[in-house]
Amino acid sequence: MVGGQKPLNTSTPCAACKLLRRRCAQECPFSPYFSPHEPQKFASVHKIFGASNVSKMLMEVPESQRSDTANSLVYEANARLRDPVYGSMGVISTLQHQIQSLQSELNVVRAELVRYRCNQDQNAVTATPSMVNLRGYPPVSSSICSQTASESVDFAAVSPSTTLTNMSDNKGTIRPWKS
Amino acid sequence: MVGGQKPLNTSTPCAACKLLRRRCAQECPFSPYFSPHEPQKFASVHKIFGASNVSKMLMEVPESQRSDTANSLVYEANARLRDPVYGSMGVISTLQHQIQSLQSELNVVRAELVRYRCNQDQNAVTATPSMVNLRGYPPVSSSICSQTASESVDFAAVSPSTTLTNMSDNKGTIRPWKS
Repeated sequence: MVGGQKPLNTSTPCAACKLLRRRCAQECPFSPYFSPHEPQKFASVHKIFGASNVSKMLMEVPESQRSDTANSLVYEANARLRDPVYGSMGVISTLQHQIQSLQSELNVVRAELVRYRCNQDQNAVTATPSMVNLRGYPPVSSSICSQTASESVDFAAVSPSTTLTNMSDNKGTIRPWKS
Repeated sequence: MVGGQKPLNTSTPCAACKLLRRRCAQECPFSPYFSPHEPQKFASVHKIFGASNVSKMLMEVPESQRSDTANSLVYEANARLRDPVYGSMGVISTLQHQIQSLQSELNVVRAELVRYRCNQDQNAVTATPSMVNLRGYPPVSSSICSQTASESVDFAAVSPSTTLTNMSDNKGTIRPWKS
């Protein structure tokens, strides 16, 4: 170090300094996370967040988490570049719909399963033991069977399952961006 | 309009102009989307993206989509403020895990259902017709039953279902940010 100046990166400057056409100091906040071999990564975050915001966001988290932070910013920036209206929110919306669809499908299959088990238990009354419960499934309760007959079993109550995350903004409201 | 100046908003300035302490012109790019009654919305996007980037992103989409764009930017900014390391990416990661969990659960329930149906069909060989297939389910194929016995049915092949979205970045790779 000469005259109090920060030492420069002796190797190739990072992608950020290259894009911003500035000297890449050894303590450059971008260089550990934006390799000159992947210039597109910094170009994306620069376009969406701006260099100073990216630097600020990196500096605000512990050093051990800066790599993850940089990567998630790149992901979000790319999502916004792909979909300028919805960005990551569009991806979130798609996943939420997928979860709702899977949950519905799961409920349908569970309902069918309960019907089979109810049938099997009803058959057990008249059939010989060797014909039913071959795999030792426990009998279902008669209350579930009667509910199933009217197609109104609450499967979330019958068998706790993965439920839809409450995707809330800071006001706790769900925003369905896409239909 | 006097001397070519743009007319000002005669009512309260928008949240953006209030925060930036500037005159709110009638053609202010923020005023339709950042009401002075919800100052936190602009404060969030200002902190994460910066005012000029927000303005640029709003102007780059058709006017009819600017409201959705502003709202999705607010959502993303709030997600980043809540989770400075992963932001929206953290939400996406959580939803992806939820989908994987639901898909696994669905496969388990489907496997159980196939076993029941196989049992029922096996019973049908020895039982009287009144004892089985009470609800008219079609018989399952013997190949599926023999696969089920070894617990290796590919349910995606047996019954097409909602599948996990391939969440890829611009390089087509999935990034599992959280374990």
